[in-house]
Amino acid sequence: MENKLPDIHLKPIGTVRSPLKERERRDAAEVIAEIIIDPALAEGLDNLIEFSHIIIIYYMHKSSKPAPLKVYPKYRTEPTPVGVFASRSPDRPNALGKTTVKLLERHENVIKVQGLDALDGTPVIDIKPCIPDIDSVPDARIPKWMTKT
Amino acid sequence: MENKLPDIHLKPIGTVRSPLKERERRDAAEVIAEIIIDPALAEGLDNLIEFSHIIIIYYMHKSSKPAPLKVYPKYRTEPTPVGVFASRSPDRPNALGKTTVKLLERHENVIKVQGLDALDGTPVIDIKPCIPDIDSVPDARIPKWMTKT
Repeated sequence: MENKLPDIHLKPIGTVRSPLKERERRDAAEVIAEIIIDPALAEGLDNLIEFSHIIIIYYMHKSSKPAPLKVYPKYRTEPTPVGVFASRSPDRPNALGKTTVKLLERHENVIKVQGLDALDGTPVIDIKPCIPDIDSVPDARIPKWMTKT
Repeated sequence: MENKLPDIHLKPIGTVRSPLKERERRDAAEVIAEIIIDPALAEGLDNLIEFSHIIIIYYMHKSSKPAPLKVYPKYRTEPTPVGVFASRSPDRPNALGKTTVKLLERHENVIKVQGLDALDGTPVIDIKPCIPDIDSVPDARIPKWMTKT
């Protein structure tokens, strides 16, 4: 059944401008980046600044293709890989990234954010307001191998 | 510059099987749904059950096209609309949905989840583990018009 599903075509709404130029395993919590939105869509950013945090969905254009089904997550010490959907690896069947960032400023079609781990030049697909009631699960359980220490 | 960005083509990884058949403004917190993953990708679900919550990214195939740039969010009482990117409206330039759900079961290429507000037949684009450290911002500020009461 799944194989009959038609492909999905998306048109990026904008582009990331970031000091992050190459793939590397680093913490982006302090990184300040801009997102340049298609000026034709600028009006869609109205009211966004009323939210402290927003969700950026982007296309990780430098990911490996075809994507592996098993990957080695950053902090896992065991030598066995895990399923790609149980990881946040950028190498995945549809290379979409999802990052919750702090919204600092908006000027017309440009927003400035903190904490975006997307590379410079990354196409942005969607922006959504972060709503704790539906987006935050502070007590979600994660396996030991996903923790840093 | 944005206009030169190439379109992005995605191939759904699976399909939602849900009791939700039509668009309506309802709370899906108690809804139990299945996601049938392309059997060729089933191995990518390994280890997923080690997480209590997962993030589903899907394509809202019944959304209005072309999308409006201003929308009327569910709980907003003021008569003025807000920018679409400041809303979670399914009618948006790229109709991607993002829902954090509780993972109940996984059997081979099928997972059972609770809290998915996607309609029956919705193409699923990506599944990611929910990691509170990066996905939860419990104290994120939202505007008054976004709250229920």
